[in-house]
Amino acid sequence: MGVNSNRVEDHPYHETTIRIPTEAAMPPLEIHRVCLPPKQTTLQKLRQRLADIFFPDNPLHRFKNQTWFTKLLLGLQFFFPIFQWAPEYNIKLLKSDIISGLTIASLAIPQGISYAKLASLPPIVGLYSSFVPPLIYSVLGSSRHLAVGPVSIASLVMGSMLSEAVSSTEDPILYLKLAFTATCFAGLFQASLGILRLGFIIDFLSKATLVGFMAGASVIVILQQLKGLLGIVHFTTKMQFYSVVSSVITHRGEWSWHTIVMGFCFLVFLFTTRHIGKTKPKLFWVAAAAPLTSVIISTVLVFLLHSKAPRISVIGHLPKGLNPPSSNMLYFSGPHLALAVKTGIITGILSLTEGVAVGRTFASLKNYQVDGNKEMMAIGIMNICGSCSSCYVTTGSFSRSAVNYNAGAQTVVSNIIMASAVLVTLLFLMPLFYYTPNVILAAIIITAVSGLVDYQAAYRLWKVDKLDFMACMCSFFGVLFISVPLGLAIAVGVSIFKILLHVTRPNTMALGNIPGTQTYHNLNRYREASRIPSFLILAVEAPIYFANSTYLQERILGWVREEEERIKASNESTLKCVILDMTAVTAIDTSGTDMMSELRKMLEKRSLQLVLANPVGSVMEKLKQSETLESFGLNGLYLTVGEAVADISSDWKAQP
Amino acid sequence: MGVNSNRVEDHPYHETTIRIPTEAAMPPLEIHRVCLPPKQTTLQKLRQRLADIFFPDNPLHRFKNQTWFTKLLLGLQFFFPIFQWAPEYNIKLLKSDIISGLTIASLAIPQGISYAKLASLPPIVGLYSSFVPPLIYSVLGSSRHLAVGPVSIASLVMGSMLSEAVSSTEDPILYLKLAFTATCFAGLFQASLGILRLGFIIDFLSKATLVGFMAGASVIVILQQLKGLLGIVHFTTKMQFYSVVSSVITHRGEWSWHTIVMGFCFLVFLFTTRHIGKTKPKLFWVAAAAPLTSVIISTVLVFLLHSKAPRISVIGHLPKGLNPPSSNMLYFSGPHLALAVKTGIITGILSLTEGVAVGRTFASLKNYQVDGNKEMMAIGIMNICGSCSSCYVTTGSFSRSAVNYNAGAQTVVSNIIMASAVLVTLLFLMPLFYYTPNVILAAIIITAVSGLVDYQAAYRLWKVDKLDFMACMCSFFGVLFISVPLGLAIAVGVSIFKILLHVTRPNTMALGNIPGTQTYHNLNRYREASRIPSFLILAVEAPIYFANSTYLQERILGWVREEEERIKASNESTLKCVILDMTAVTAIDTSGTDMMSELRKMLEKRSLQLVLANPVGSVMEKLKQSETLESFGLNGLYLTVGEAVADISSDWKAQP
Repeated sequence: MGVNSNRVEDHPYHETTIRIPTEAAMPPLEIHRVCLPPKQTTLQKLRQRLADIFFPDNPLHRFKNQTWFTKLLLGLQFFFPIFQWAPEYNIKLLKSDIISGLTIASLAIPQGISYAKLASLPPIVGLYSSFVPPLIYSVLGSSRHLAVGPVSIASLVMGSMLSEAVSSTEDPILYLKLAFTATCFAGLFQASLGILRLGFIIDFLSKATLVGFMAGASVIVILQQLKGLLGIVHFTTKMQFYSVVSSVITHRGEWSWHTIVMGFCFLVFLFTTRHIGKTKPKLFWVAAAAPLTSVIISTVLVFLLHSKAPRISVIGHLPKGLNPPSSNMLYFSGPHLALAVKTGIITGILSLTEGVAVGRTFASLKNYQVDGNKEMMAIGIMNICGSCSSCYVTTGSFSRSAVNYNAGAQTVVSNIIMASAVLVTLLFLMPLFYYTPNVILAAIIITAVSGLVDYQAAYRLWKVDKLDFMACMCSFFGVLFISVPLGLAIAVGVSIFKILLHVTRPNTMALGNIPGTQTYHNLNRYREASRIPSFLILAVEAPIYFANSTYLQERILGWVREEEERIKASNESTLKCVILDMTAVTAIDTSGTDMMSELRKMLEKRSLQLVLANPVGSVMEKLKQSETLESFGLNGLYLTVGEAVADISSDWKAQP
Repeated sequence: MGVNSNRVEDHPYHETTIRIPTEAAMPPLEIHRVCLPPKQTTLQKLRQRLADIFFPDNPLHRFKNQTWFTKLLLGLQFFFPIFQWAPEYNIKLLKSDIISGLTIASLAIPQGISYAKLASLPPIVGLYSSFVPPLIYSVLGSSRHLAVGPVSIASLVMGSMLSEAVSSTEDPILYLKLAFTATCFAGLFQASLGILRLGFIIDFLSKATLVGFMAGASVIVILQQLKGLLGIVHFTTKMQFYSVVSSVITHRGEWSWHTIVMGFCFLVFLFTTRHIGKTKPKLFWVAAAAPLTSVIISTVLVFLLHSKAPRISVIGHLPKGLNPPSSNMLYFSGPHLALAVKTGIITGILSLTEGVAVGRTFASLKNYQVDGNKEMMAIGIMNICGSCSSCYVTTGSFSRSAVNYNAGAQTVVSNIIMASAVLVTLLFLMPLFYYTPNVILAAIIITAVSGLVDYQAAYRLWKVDKLDFMACMCSFFGVLFISVPLGLAIAVGVSIFKILLHVTRPNTMALGNIPGTQTYHNLNRYREASRIPSFLILAVEAPIYFANSTYLQERILGWVREEEERIKASNESTLKCVILDMTAVTAIDTSGTDMMSELRKMLEKRSLQLVLANPVGSVMEKLKQSETLESFGLNGLYLTVGEAVADISSDWKAQP
């Protein structure tokens, strides 16, 4: 230690020491100091940390060094993305938008009616929800391809959660009130997530969780559609596997063969067109037009046959006219308020996840940016306004957005076109739906949601990550057999457990030198890597926290014990130094720093030196603040494993 | 790319390629392949993972390569540590153990009585609990210095939780039943944690949480002792700050001045002796003997003065004799069962934490190993047996273990000596406690628990880690103002939130080359580090998970944008390649692999090459399984950043 003992006394962190080599043949040994990160006050750190949490995208960077007028314009564009594209809008773009808008309208009208039925709401609410929200989104939204309207998952969840407390057939007014209230809370929740910039909360619904959740929900929806498909009249309102299946079986007597035949014919038609649309993207319009075609054909059929087959149930009378205001129906007190809030939050988070994910997907295909937090505000405000104009929860739908994209949509004007088409329908065409059979709505829903069962994704999860697959299965079976919110909660719990497991039981590995280099890698993985006699070089692959400090201490002592046993068995030179490669220890807390100094003491008792290599900035800071660094001395810190080995072994040679 | 395009085609992972340098002056460039870890089946991986979770200490390693007889002996020693030291026990050790045993007995008897009162149990239960459990622990326990008996925290928590449902004065039998039942469940819980090797659960009570929790609990206990210290008769049974303080104030009329004077005199005496014992470790016996001395002096005083000061409340009659059996009092049905189970689990986990931590502390001082899971089994079995012999929750007490250690205890025989002293007390000395005033018990409790308020530790937490300090404060105020279990739950929540926060918002940094080396370090931290023109080298400091993949993608694109702006402003050569240093990315999940391939595509659109350096084994596996690796090609993977820079820039030079 004699040669470099001066390193402990003087603290110039930013210098390089040239060591005098002990043997003439050795190249001069250059030892670099480990630096502390630049000093920051607690306030600065807090500010940076908060900026990192809430403004990772740094939304203000565009406003820097601009005139006041430009700043105002940019601010306007920031809050109303319509100002970004409107000045450059032209007739060519409009033509594309009209085509795509009409295409998605042909899909939105039958889907709107169907999804409203899925949520146990009057069919007309589905059309209302396809009119106001798209208009609002077109002003506020930053995605150019999102097709806004009711979606299957949110409809399903709302239906299942509200039906548990209130029957939509026995007390339809209360049910409607609760649905609008839940929509309002969903909007408030979404908008506040966006305003408070807490968008990262939806990241906790991992893809694995969502794959399982969507598949489970789809299976339940498909089973529930057996009501319409088999023509059953009395059916459970519950959303559980058992009650749905037993409902189907116990009401065998109500099965209507006319309905079944019709339903299956249209199912085959819809699935075939969907398959065509999928395999040949150019023929996307075949799949897009199929639902409306089915509705038209089946309505005509039923109209012609209704005297002969009276048991086929039809939608019946639908009121004509625009969305009536519904702000007077919001329900802010009374026994079911808690349910409405809960339903609002869960449907809100689900619809947000779908909307943001769909927006991001198509944005990345066309290489533009969608700001998650801004999208949340847009979707939130859209739902708040929706709840005051007889709409229920809406968001960007995956299936309709895909059709929109394929049909060549250029801007959100396609949403305005779609809304106009719905407007015409609401004003003039409602009587035409009188004879539309319910079975066709069931067939449309089944076709739409069956696409959500993504077994290939599940197989990929199984192949790549067993724990992700487990989270997926948990949410699938949880939704199927327990309930939607509990299934989701279990899946999120499994995902978080996975993170904690990785932190609680981190990987440690022994490193060896790759010959001819100064780098050290896993001995187990690189056969050419070789041990350095008298050294044990360990890498810890996780931050050191209270949750793993005891384990890591035991594990490191275990490595030392094993190494000493190995050395004894093979008669090598005794172990003298343990080097911890701290590169992957990205954080440390007070339990961790305590563990480090305790470990150093324990190894010292066995006359082993403990040395740290390349601790990251934040870890260095913590070690310094907790005074653990002082016990190590600058002698116990090296920038790289290579320098540590070279310096320590030259010290040994200097004083044999 | 021409020169090394052959690297993609042939896959020999364990080879070294010597590249032909493009310029004569350059040294030969040696490029090392990134290896996949050795192949393992899912079953092997699962087995290794489970072994890592449940057997990190590898308890079977001693049994390897032994004869059957040795194995049997080792097994016996494993389950009954008494067989480890008993054969070598001698008269010298016994002498030390007798001295320390008698010392802790003098502490255990008054503390036993006091803590039982803290738990609202009859004082005699405290003595019972200082007799049976130490005997059982001496056979099963592996710590040599643990002094077993009732402890303040567990007594407090049991008292506060049970008092909420059942009054110990109105229904003392039910209360006693519940206490024994809770003890039984605590024991079952502790033993099963040990047997199932789930000991790591107690690691989730971080040191920060415990510091805050103990301080909060101590403050409440001290306030509650005002009842005894002021001589108040009617007092709340609740354990909340408000109700205790308001109880003290509203019952001002009951304050007894005799009691107060006596109490404060003995408090001063006890604190003074404690201070002496702390500052001069050799005089530890002054502090150790003080409680018994106070009890004796105060009892004599009250006996002499009881005609003149009848308002000083005394313990009164205590039954003589050994622990009566209480297995018939266990309560396995009825309305309060859930409470008993809950109380059992919470007191169980708290007493386990204290016992294991104390055992480990003294073991590390004397350099021997305490097996956490075995200790859990020992403490659990001790409590199960205790619950059948009129004992309540016991564990290793910190204060008595410290006295035991200082008094020179060598083995658990000191516990046997202590139990014998308690036995003599139980059989013959009980009538002597008739006149012992309750105020002295209050003073003993206050002195004992005031040592648990560790403000220095809290200050250290503040200095080193603000979030740890927050967890500490949450548990302090939670316990003080809400309730013990909720306060604990909040603190654990904050600790877990901290882990998740680190994972959700990981640090990313730009690296530069340290001149004269092949290593790359943080540009911000190392002033001498220099950027490499045309390269952006980024390090990600966290595993890539669903919870951070979106953030990381945004953040990396943000780095690219900033770098491009900087280059534009300073007229440097354009950015061509982004290198991600993956050393600290210790794990990746399916969302992460998707993000990586998407990022690669996005950068490719901007004609930027994305290259990974040094991915760890598990990440390589995941990348391979998810087929992300194929999109990178072997061309996009390097063992070190240095090799990546050298190889890619020589490629650029080869084809300008």
